[in-house]
Amino acid sequence: MSTPRPDAREVASRAIYEGRIVRLYEKDVTLPNGHTARLEIVHHPGAAAVVPLHDDGTVTLVHQYRHAAGGWLHEIPAGLLEAGEAPLDCAARELTEETGLTASDVRPLMTYRTTPGFSDEVVHLFIATGLTEGQTDHGHDEVIEVARMPLAEAVARVRKGEIVDGKTVIALLALEAGMGKQEEAGP
Amino acid sequence: MSTPRPDAREVASRAIYEGRIVRLYEKDVTLPNGHTARLEIVHHPGAAAVVPLHDDGTVTLVHQYRHAAGGWLHEIPAGLLEAGEAPLDCAARELTEETGLTASDVRPLMTYRTTPGFSDEVVHLFIATGLTEGQTDHGHDEVIEVARMPLAEAVARVRKGEIVDGKTVIALLALEAGMGKQEEAGP
Repeated sequence: MSTPRPDAREVASRAIYEGRIVRLYEKDVTLPNGHTARLEIVHHPGAAAVVPLHDDGTVTLVHQYRHAAGGWLHEIPAGLLEAGEAPLDCAARELTEETGLTASDVRPLMTYRTTPGFSDEVVHLFIATGLTEGQTDHGHDEVIEVARMPLAEAVARVRKGEIVDGKTVIALLALEAGMGKQEEAGP
Repeated sequence: MSTPRPDAREVASRAIYEGRIVRLYEKDVTLPNGHTARLEIVHHPGAAAVVPLHDDGTVTLVHQYRHAAGGWLHEIPAGLLEAGEAPLDCAARELTEETGLTASDVRPLMTYRTTPGFSDEVVHLFIATGLTEGQTDHGHDEVIEVARMPLAEAVARVRKGEIVDGKTVIALLALEAGMGKQEEAGP
Protein backbone atom coordinates (compact mmCIF):
# COMPACT_ATOMS: atom_id res chain seq x y z
CA MET A 1 0.00 0.00 0.00
CA SER A 2 1.32 3.38 -0.99
CA THR A 3 0.26 6.58 0.77
CA PRO A 4 -1.35 9.25 -1.45
CA ARG A 5 1.20 11.82 -2.57
CA PRO A 6 0.92 15.37 -3.87
CA ASP A 7 0.98 15.57 -7.64
CA ALA A 8 3.42 17.56 -9.68
CA ARG A 9 1.99 20.18 -12.03
CA GLU A 10 3.31 20.93 -15.50
CA VAL A 11 3.42 24.73 -15.86
CA ALA A 12 4.85 24.82 -19.40
CA SER A 13 6.03 22.40 -22.06
CA ARG A 14 8.07 23.39 -25.10
CA ALA A 15 8.77 20.92 -27.91
CA ILE A 16 12.43 21.48 -28.88
CA TYR A 17 13.00 18.72 -31.41
CA GLU A 18 10.99 16.01 -33.11
CA GLY A 19 13.24 13.32 -34.58
CA ARG A 20 12.67 10.01 -36.25
CA ILE A 21 13.03 8.25 -32.88
CA VAL A 22 13.26 10.73 -30.01
CA ARG A 23 11.40 13.94 -29.14
CA LEU A 24 12.98 16.48 -26.80
CA TYR A 25 10.97 18.75 -24.49
CA GLU A 26 11.77 21.48 -22.01
CA LYS A 27 9.17 21.38 -19.27
CA ASP A 28 8.62 23.72 -16.32
CA VAL A 29 7.22 21.54 -13.55
CA THR A 30 6.06 22.47 -10.07
CA LEU A 31 7.34 19.53 -8.06
CA PRO A 32 5.56 17.95 -5.09
CA ASN A 33 7.82 20.06 -2.80
CA GLY A 34 6.44 23.30 -4.31
CA HIS A 35 9.63 24.20 -6.16
CA THR A 36 9.33 24.82 -9.91
CA ALA A 37 12.14 23.29 -11.98
CA ARG A 38 12.97 23.33 -15.67
CA LEU A 39 13.36 19.73 -16.83
CA GLU A 40 14.89 18.35 -20.03
CA ILE A 41 12.90 15.30 -21.05
CA VAL A 42 13.51 12.94 -23.97
CA HIS A 43 10.43 11.09 -25.18
CA HIS A 44 11.23 7.65 -26.55
CA PRO A 45 8.74 5.20 -28.13
CA GLY A 46 9.88 2.32 -25.92
CA ALA A 47 11.51 -0.95 -26.88
CA ALA A 48 11.26 -4.71 -26.53
CA ALA A 49 14.24 -7.02 -26.04
CA VAL A 50 14.46 -10.78 -25.80
CA VAL A 51 16.91 -13.41 -24.51
CA PRO A 52 16.97 -16.31 -27.01
CA LEU A 53 17.54 -19.30 -24.66
CA HIS A 54 18.37 -22.50 -26.56
CA ASP A 55 17.56 -26.02 -25.27
CA ASP A 56 21.30 -26.67 -24.75
CA GLY A 57 21.64 -23.77 -22.28
CA THR A 58 23.25 -21.35 -24.74
CA VAL A 59 21.99 -17.87 -25.56
CA THR A 60 22.21 -15.97 -28.83
CA LEU A 61 23.50 -12.41 -28.53
CA VAL A 62 24.06 -9.84 -31.24
CA HIS A 63 27.33 -7.96 -31.61
CA GLN A 64 26.26 -4.57 -32.82
CA TYR A 65 27.86 -1.28 -33.81
CA ARG A 66 26.48 1.52 -31.61
CA HIS A 67 27.66 4.97 -32.58
CA ALA A 68 26.38 6.58 -29.35
CA ALA A 69 28.54 4.10 -27.41
CA GLY A 70 31.55 4.62 -29.66
CA GLY A 71 31.91 1.01 -30.72
CA TRP A 72 30.62 -2.55 -30.77
CA LEU A 73 28.48 -3.99 -27.97
CA HIS A 74 27.17 -7.44 -27.17
CA GLU A 75 23.41 -7.13 -26.67
CA ILE A 76 20.31 -9.26 -26.61
CA PRO A 77 18.15 -8.78 -29.73
CA ALA A 78 15.98 -5.69 -29.34
CA GLY A 79 14.16 -2.98 -31.22
CA LEU A 80 11.83 -0.03 -31.03
CA LEU A 81 8.11 -0.56 -30.57
CA GLU A 82 6.26 0.33 -33.76
CA ALA A 83 3.04 2.35 -33.49
CA GLY A 84 0.37 0.18 -31.87
CA GLU A 85 2.65 -2.85 -31.68
CA ALA A 86 2.38 -5.11 -28.60
CA PRO A 87 5.78 -5.51 -26.85
CA LEU A 88 5.65 -9.32 -27.19
CA ASP A 89 5.06 -9.07 -30.95
CA CYS A 90 7.93 -6.59 -31.21
CA ALA A 91 10.24 -8.97 -29.31
CA ALA A 92 9.35 -11.90 -31.58
CA ARG A 93 9.78 -9.72 -34.71
CA GLU A 94 13.18 -8.35 -33.66
CA LEU A 95 14.34 -11.83 -32.65
CA THR A 96 13.76 -13.11 -36.17
CA GLU A 97 15.01 -9.98 -37.97
CA GLU A 98 18.27 -9.79 -36.02
CA THR A 99 19.12 -13.48 -35.49
CA GLY A 100 16.96 -15.47 -37.93
CA LEU A 101 15.54 -17.43 -34.98
CA THR A 102 11.86 -18.13 -34.46
CA ALA A 103 10.51 -19.16 -31.04
CA SER A 104 7.67 -21.50 -30.05
CA ASP A 105 7.37 -19.60 -26.75
CA VAL A 106 8.04 -15.94 -25.87
CA ARG A 107 7.23 -14.97 -22.29
CA PRO A 108 7.70 -11.80 -20.19
CA LEU A 109 10.75 -11.45 -17.96
CA MET A 110 10.58 -7.86 -16.72
CA THR A 111 9.66 -4.31 -17.71
CA TYR A 112 11.91 -1.48 -16.55
CA ARG A 113 12.82 2.17 -17.09
CA THR A 114 16.26 2.77 -18.61
CA THR A 115 16.98 6.25 -17.31
CA PRO A 116 14.06 7.97 -15.55
CA GLY A 117 16.07 11.10 -14.75
CA PHE A 118 15.69 12.43 -18.28
CA SER A 119 13.71 9.98 -20.42
CA ASP A 120 10.39 8.12 -20.39
CA GLU A 121 11.90 5.11 -22.19
CA VAL A 122 10.53 1.75 -21.05
CA VAL A 123 12.09 -1.57 -22.10
CA HIS A 124 10.02 -4.77 -22.07
CA LEU A 125 12.21 -7.84 -21.59
CA PHE A 126 11.21 -11.35 -22.74
CA ILE A 127 12.62 -14.89 -22.84
CA ALA A 128 12.29 -16.87 -26.07
CA THR A 129 12.51 -20.68 -26.05
CA GLY A 130 11.76 -23.50 -28.50
CA LEU A 131 14.07 -21.85 -31.02
CA THR A 132 14.52 -22.83 -34.67
CA GLU A 133 16.96 -21.23 -37.11
CA GLY A 134 16.14 -19.27 -40.26
CA GLN A 135 17.02 -16.13 -42.23
CA THR A 136 17.94 -12.74 -40.76
CA ASP A 137 16.52 -9.47 -42.11
CA HIS A 138 18.74 -6.61 -40.92
CA GLY A 139 17.74 -3.00 -41.53
CA HIS A 140 20.22 -0.73 -43.37
CA ASP A 141 20.96 1.04 -40.07
CA GLU A 142 21.78 -2.18 -38.26
CA VAL A 143 25.33 -3.51 -38.24
CA ILE A 144 24.94 -6.82 -36.49
CA GLU A 145 26.77 -10.12 -36.08
CA VAL A 146 25.32 -13.08 -34.19
CA ALA A 147 27.24 -14.62 -31.24
CA ARG A 148 26.01 -17.78 -29.47
CA MET A 149 27.50 -18.80 -26.13
CA PRO A 150 26.59 -20.65 -22.93
CA LEU A 151 24.43 -18.58 -20.55
CA ALA A 152 27.13 -19.06 -17.89
CA GLU A 153 29.72 -17.51 -20.23
CA ALA A 154 27.46 -14.53 -20.97
CA VAL A 155 26.96 -13.98 -17.22
CA ALA A 156 30.73 -14.29 -16.66
CA ARG A 157 31.22 -11.57 -19.30
CA VAL A 158 28.84 -9.32 -17.33
CA ARG A 159 30.94 -9.94 -14.21
CA LYS A 160 34.15 -9.13 -16.08
CA GLY A 161 32.72 -5.88 -17.44
CA GLU A 162 32.80 -7.08 -21.05
CA ILE A 163 29.01 -6.94 -21.48
CA VAL A 164 27.91 -3.42 -20.51
CA ASP A 165 24.57 -2.84 -22.24
CA GLY A 166 21.95 -2.21 -19.54
CA LYS A 167 19.07 -4.28 -20.94
CA THR A 168 21.45 -7.19 -21.58
CA VAL A 169 22.94 -7.01 -18.09
CA ILE A 170 19.47 -7.00 -16.53
CA ALA A 171 18.17 -9.86 -18.67
CA LEU A 172 21.20 -12.10 -18.02
CA LEU A 173 21.28 -11.43 -14.26
CA ALA A 174 17.52 -11.97 -14.02
CA LEU A 175 17.76 -15.24 -15.92
CA GLU A 176 20.63 -16.38 -13.68
CA ALA A 177 18.49 -15.49 -10.64
CA GLY A 178 15.76 -17.82 -11.93
CA MET A 179 13.28 -15.13 -12.98
CA GLY A 180 10.98 -15.74 -15.93
CA LYS A 181 10.57 -19.48 -15.32
CA GLN A 182 7.50 -20.90 -17.01
CA GLU A 183 5.95 -21.94 -13.67
CA GLU A 184 6.21 -18.31 -12.49
CA ALA A 185 4.38 -16.97 -15.51
CA GLY A 186 1.06 -18.34 -14.21
CA PRO A 187 -1.69 -20.16 -16.10
CA MET B 1 40.70 -11.35 -28.54
CA SER B 2 38.52 -9.29 -30.81
CA THR B 3 39.03 -9.18 -34.58
CA PRO B 4 39.73 -5.75 -36.05
CA ARG B 5 36.59 -4.14 -37.39
CA PRO B 6 35.93 -1.38 -39.89
CA ASP B 7 35.38 1.97 -38.26
CA ALA B 8 32.35 4.13 -38.69
CA ARG B 9 32.89 7.64 -40.05
CA GLU B 10 31.01 10.72 -38.90
CA VAL B 11 30.07 12.69 -42.03
CA ALA B 12 28.23 15.51 -40.25
CA SER B 13 27.26 16.53 -36.74
CA ARG B 14 24.67 19.20 -35.93
CA ALA B 15 24.17 20.44 -32.35
CA ILE B 16 20.40 20.77 -31.93
CA TYR B 17 20.11 21.65 -28.26
CA GLU B 18 22.37 22.36 -25.33
CA GLY B 19 20.57 22.01 -22.02
CA ARG B 20 21.61 22.11 -18.41
CA ILE B 21 22.03 18.32 -18.41
CA VAL B 22 21.65 16.86 -21.91
CA ARG B 23 22.91 17.91 -25.34
CA LEU B 24 21.14 16.65 -28.47
CA TYR B 25 22.92 16.04 -31.78
CA GLU B 26 21.88 14.91 -35.23
CA LYS B 27 24.77 13.01 -36.78
CA ASP B 28 25.19 11.57 -40.27
CA VAL B 29 27.34 8.48 -39.85
CA THR B 30 28.72 6.10 -42.45
CA LEU B 31 28.33 2.78 -40.64
CA PRO B 32 30.77 -0.15 -40.89
CA ASN B 33 28.42 -1.70 -43.52
CA GLY B 34 28.89 1.35 -45.81
CA HIS B 35 25.35 2.69 -45.33
CA THR B 36 25.07 6.31 -44.15
CA ALA B 37 22.41 6.85 -41.49
CA ARG B 38 21.13 9.93 -39.68
CA LEU B 39 21.34 9.28 -35.94
CA GLU B 40 19.77 11.16 -33.04
CA ILE B 41 22.19 11.12 -30.13
CA VAL B 42 21.72 12.50 -26.63
CA HIS B 43 24.94 13.38 -24.82
CA HIS B 44 24.70 12.90 -21.07
CA PRO B 45 27.42 13.71 -18.48
CA GLY B 46 27.19 10.27 -16.87
CA ALA B 47 26.16 9.34 -13.37
CA ALA B 48 27.21 7.43 -10.28
CA ALA B 49 24.88 5.38 -8.11
CA VAL B 50 25.46 3.47 -4.89
CA VAL B 51 23.80 0.69 -2.90
CA PRO B 52 24.04 1.57 0.80
CA LEU B 53 24.37 -1.90 2.38
CA HIS B 54 24.02 -1.84 6.17
CA ASP B 55 25.69 -4.33 8.52
CA ASP B 56 22.26 -5.84 9.33
CA GLY B 57 21.64 -6.79 5.68
CA THR B 58 19.26 -3.93 4.94
CA VAL B 59 19.66 -1.41 2.12
CA THR B 60 18.64 2.24 2.02
CA LEU B 61 16.69 3.26 -1.08
CA VAL B 62 15.28 6.66 -1.97
CA HIS B 63 11.67 7.12 -3.03
CA GLN B 64 11.87 9.89 -5.57
CA TYR B 65 9.51 11.87 -7.79
CA ARG B 66 10.55 11.47 -11.44
CA HIS B 67 8.57 13.59 -13.84
CA ALA B 68 9.88 11.74 -16.92
CA ALA B 69 8.56 8.52 -15.40
CA GLY B 70 5.22 10.09 -14.43
CA GLY B 71 5.51 9.36 -10.72
CA TRP B 72 7.48 8.09 -7.74
CA LEU B 73 10.20 5.45 -8.08
CA HIS B 74 12.28 3.50 -5.59
CA GLU B 75 15.92 3.98 -6.55
CA ILE B 76 19.39 3.64 -5.11
CA PRO B 77 20.99 7.02 -4.34
CA ALA B 78 22.50 8.50 -7.50
CA GLY B 79 23.44 11.69 -9.23
CA LEU B 80 25.14 13.31 -12.17
CA LEU B 81 28.91 13.45 -12.40
CA GLU B 82 30.12 17.01 -11.92
CA ALA B 83 32.87 18.32 -14.21
CA GLY B 84 36.11 16.50 -13.42
CA GLU B 85 34.55 14.53 -10.56
CA ALA B 86 35.65 10.92 -10.07
CA PRO B 87 32.68 8.51 -10.12
CA LEU B 88 33.53 7.15 -6.64
CA ASP B 89 33.58 10.67 -5.16
CA CYS B 90 30.25 11.40 -6.85
CA ALA B 91 28.75 8.22 -5.38
CA ALA B 92 29.93 9.11 -1.87
CA ARG B 93 28.67 12.69 -2.23
CA GLU B 94 25.23 11.69 -3.51
CA LEU B 95 24.93 9.02 -0.79
CA THR B 96 25.31 11.65 1.91
CA GLU B 97 23.24 14.36 0.17
CA GLU B 98 20.28 12.06 -0.51
CA THR B 99 20.28 9.80 2.58
CA GLY B 100 22.49 11.50 5.20
CA LEU B 101 24.64 8.35 5.34
CA THR B 102 28.43 8.34 5.25
CA ALA B 103 30.38 5.18 4.38
CA SER B 104 33.74 3.89 5.60
CA ASP B 105 34.06 1.89 2.34
CA VAL B 106 32.75 2.59 -1.17
CA ARG B 107 33.80 0.06 -3.83
CA PRO B 108 32.96 -0.48 -7.50
CA LEU B 109 30.18 -2.90 -8.46
CA MET B 110 29.76 -2.37 -12.22
CA THR B 111 29.80 0.25 -14.96
CA TYR B 112 27.17 0.00 -17.69
CA ARG B 113 25.46 1.90 -20.52
CA THR B 114 21.83 2.79 -19.90
CA THR B 115 20.57 3.03 -23.46
CA PRO B 116 23.29 2.87 -26.15
CA GLY B 117 20.78 3.11 -29.01
CA PHE B 118 20.42 6.86 -28.58
CA SER B 119 22.59 8.06 -25.67
CA ASP B 120 26.19 7.90 -24.47
CA GLU B 121 25.11 7.84 -20.82
CA VAL B 122 27.29 5.64 -18.58
CA VAL B 123 26.33 4.79 -14.99
CA HIS B 124 29.00 3.77 -12.48
CA LEU B 125 27.57 1.55 -9.73
CA PHE B 126 29.13 1.21 -6.26
CA ILE B 127 28.48 -0.54 -2.95
CA ALA B 128 28.81 1.47 0.27
CA THR B 129 29.38 -0.27 3.61
CA GLY B 130 30.38 0.80 7.13
CA LEU B 131 27.48 3.25 7.17
CA THR B 132 26.78 5.91 9.79
CA GLU B 133 23.78 8.26 9.85
CA GLY B 134 23.78 12.03 9.49
CA GLN B 135 22.03 14.95 7.80
CA THR B 136 20.63 14.97 4.26
CA ASP B 137 21.14 17.87 1.85
CA HIS B 138 18.54 17.63 -0.93
CA GLY B 139 18.67 19.94 -3.93
CA HIS B 140 15.58 22.05 -4.75
CA ASP B 141 14.92 19.80 -7.76
CA GLU B 142 15.03 16.62 -5.68
CA VAL B 143 11.86 15.28 -4.09
CA ILE B 144 13.13 12.38 -2.05
CA GLU B 145 12.09 10.19 0.87
CA VAL B 146 14.34 7.54 2.38
CA ALA B 147 13.18 3.89 2.59
CA ARG B 148 15.25 1.21 4.37
CA MET B 149 14.42 -2.46 3.88
CA PRO B 150 16.10 -5.89 3.88
CA LEU B 151 18.06 -6.59 0.68
CA ALA B 152 15.89 -9.69 0.19
CA GLU B 153 12.75 -7.52 0.27
CA ALA B 154 14.23 -5.10 -2.28
CA VAL B 155 15.08 -8.00 -4.59
CA ALA B 156 11.56 -9.42 -4.10
CA ARG B 157 10.19 -6.02 -5.19
CA VAL B 158 12.27 -6.25 -8.35
CA ARG B 159 10.78 -9.70 -9.03
CA LYS B 160 7.25 -8.36 -8.44
CA GLY B 161 7.82 -5.46 -10.83
CA GLU B 162 7.52 -2.86 -8.06
CA ILE B 163 11.10 -1.62 -8.46
CA VAL B 164 11.57 -0.69 -12.14
CA ASP B 165 14.47 1.77 -12.25
CA GLY B 166 17.21 0.23 -14.40
CA LYS B 167 20.27 1.14 -12.28
CA THR B 168 18.48 -0.08 -9.15
CA VAL B 169 17.42 -3.36 -10.78
CA ILE B 170 21.00 -4.01 -11.94
CA ALA B 171 22.58 -3.12 -8.60
CA LEU B 172 20.19 -5.29 -6.56
CA LEU B 173 20.43 -8.31 -8.90
CA ALA B 174 24.23 -7.97 -9.03
CA LEU B 175 24.43 -7.81 -5.24
CA GLU B 176 22.15 -10.85 -4.93
CA ALA B 177 24.44 -12.68 -7.40
CA GLY B 178 27.41 -12.02 -5.11
CA MET B 179 29.11 -9.39 -7.27
CA GLY B 180 31.12 -6.59 -5.64
CA LYS B 181 32.35 -8.72 -2.70
CA GLN B 182 35.43 -7.21 -1.08
CA GLU B 183 37.56 -10.25 -1.96
CA GLU B 184 36.70 -9.71 -5.65
CA ALA B 185 37.79 -6.08 -5.60
CA GLY B 186 41.45 -7.08 -5.31
CA PRO B 187 44.17 -5.71 -3.02
